[in-house]
Amino acid sequence: MPVGTQGAVKAIRQSDLEEVGAEIILGNTYHLLLRPGDDLIGRLGGLHRFIGWDRPILTDSGGFQVYSLAQRRAITEEGADFQSHLDGARYLLTPERATDIQTRLGSDIAMAFDECVAFPATREQAADATMRSVRWAERCRRRFLDVQARADGTPSASNSGQAQFGIVQGGTFQDLRDESADATVQVGFEGYAIGGLSVGEPIDQMYAVAAATARRLPADRPRYLMGVGTPEDLVECVAHGIDMFDCVLPTRNARNGQLFTSRGRVNIRNARYADDGGPLDPQCTCYTCRRHSKAYLRHLHMAGEMSAAALNTLHNIRFYLDTMRRIRDAIAFQTFEKFRQEFLRSVSTGTP
Amino acid sequence: MPVGTQGAVKAIRQSDLEEVGAEIILGNTYHLLLRPGDDLIGRLGGLHRFIGWDRPILTDSGGFQVYSLAQRRAITEEGADFQSHLDGARYLLTPERATDIQTRLGSDIAMAFDECVAFPATREQAADATMRSVRWAERCRRRFLDVQARADGTPSASNSGQAQFGIVQGGTFQDLRDESADATVQVGFEGYAIGGLSVGEPIDQMYAVAAATARRLPADRPRYLMGVGTPEDLVECVAHGIDMFDCVLPTRNARNGQLFTSRGRVNIRNARYADDGGPLDPQCTCYTCRRHSKAYLRHLHMAGEMSAAALNTLHNIRFYLDTMRRIRDAIAFQTFEKFRQEFLRSVSTGTP
Repeated sequence: MPVGTQGAVKAIRQSDLEEVGAEIILGNTYHLLLRPGDDLIGRLGGLHRFIGWDRPILTDSGGFQVYSLAQRRAITEEGADFQSHLDGARYLLTPERATDIQTRLGSDIAMAFDECVAFPATREQAADATMRSVRWAERCRRRFLDVQARADGTPSASNSGQAQFGIVQGGTFQDLRDESADATVQVGFEGYAIGGLSVGEPIDQMYAVAAATARRLPADRPRYLMGVGTPEDLVECVAHGIDMFDCVLPTRNARNGQLFTSRGRVNIRNARYADDGGPLDPQCTCYTCRRHSKAYLRHLHMAGEMSAAALNTLHNIRFYLDTMRRIRDAIAFQTFEKFRQEFLRSVSTGTP
Repeated sequence: MPVGTQGAVKAIRQSDLEEVGAEIILGNTYHLLLRPGDDLIGRLGGLHRFIGWDRPILTDSGGFQVYSLAQRRAITEEGADFQSHLDGARYLLTPERATDIQTRLGSDIAMAFDECVAFPATREQAADATMRSVRWAERCRRRFLDVQARADGTPSASNSGQAQFGIVQGGTFQDLRDESADATVQVGFEGYAIGGLSVGEPIDQMYAVAAATARRLPADRPRYLMGVGTPEDLVECVAHGIDMFDCVLPTRNARNGQLFTSRGRVNIRNARYADDGGPLDPQCTCYTCRRHSKAYLRHLHMAGEMSAAALNTLHNIRFYLDTMRRIRDAIAFQTFEKFRQEFLRSVSTGTP
């Protein structure tokens, strides 16, 4: 899922996303709550209508941004009290409020409100946050079901088909992960996410925890690894049982001139591309690769033109979506293991 | 002509320009000389190929940027010696060199190298720059014809169909303008531009000089008013005999949230648009107006999203091109004077 933090995938437009085949994007509850506000988006007909996008949207719950962005946060059993990173205004996010906000946004998949376990964390810290996340998951689900039943006092849902995913925490402690997975599955959601990874732990540990946790989650429900990762991570984690991902890497790196191609990574600032009239990735059929040369992309980037970010973002998202498409095809044709080995060899071999 | 200073119209991509119906864009010789350099662009097949744009391109000669951007400039009869505003490197632009650079770029319309008259200027200053520009125009034309004839020592032309326009100077002194126009026409170009206006003089004076100078230029050749202007300026100056314009106003204002519509100007930052679910301009059929609301455009702008600049630029260019299309239609149907009155009334009446 390309990340559309503030109701927009940075640097490109909705028609670009359609053109490269994005089937679902992510919006951030924390950012949209702060600006322009869930009330305003609700009044204007929900997030799809507000941003002009009629394909699916997943909204996170704000839990991760409270952990990574918010200032002066205080976590209690009630919820998370924090200051906006924009203007210092105080907010209280509770499981009920995070659920209500996502109801107003009308996303297709809402996420439970959780407490992200920091890395590194002591076992006690991890256990506390994990168990609280389970209790919050129960409150989120209750509120969600009340809203779906249109019980009194709940906001009216602009998307009656909304699904809700629970989030497994537990840090790098596999027994806590197992406990969290079992308890979250016990609450019962339409899908399950693995949160609190890719926050600084070694990559092998991330793979190991993702793999062991994915095995513990029901096979007939989507398994979503939050905030991951590189193209290699996608392939490796699918091998470990993951179905869905979101990450700012393709879009953020694009803006910095870091491009992903079928022949490995390209830093478009590199002087070797100044004279290179060839396409960024000859195997890619995106607009950027069809129309422009590496020399032009480098020129735009060095000259500080915004269109560099747009063209690069378009390509990186296409590369990520193509990778997922190739994974699905390989699984369907039962050639995934072969694909995996070839992909890791071709993509990981340095700068072409 | 939308302005593509560094080989790109800021914030949008070439397919956007095609979509809104741009038939010609402008590139800046000064900027392209400094970065990435005319040699590199020439090696890669010329400017069209370098930027991936197969419709016409007009390149200016650098004269205006030497005046407005370059540092420590010294003008002699030979040419303009100046420092790059990017890195302080020294350059010498002469009439011959400005012509050769544009040959290498392979634009469809090249401009003669001139000395822009400052405003205010004494009569003596204006006369000096104007007469030097005439002598430079002769040198530009000679060089251009030599190149076309593929005389020895000239760069090979990547665009054998290139035209060259002369530029009339004279500041706000109409007798100097007349003298410059006559002498430039005497040299003989495929078209004629009026330069050195819109540099700070009162608007009525700009209109008056443009009108009187346009009358002095041959009716069977394009008359191009450089660096102008507002939508109202386009209509007024066409009334005074001008055929072509370029200006950064639609693109620069778009990036600042200043939008042109059929009902007047819109400052999208205005809080009144926060809740406005309607399109920016109901009469406009551009992507931005078809797909998004003023509320969303305001949100993107306030949130600092690059896509705000892209969507706004797309609309403003469409509005400018639509205005020119409507002018052409009105002339063809002999209803121009009626159109002019209605246009000035509807567009100039404050913020809707």
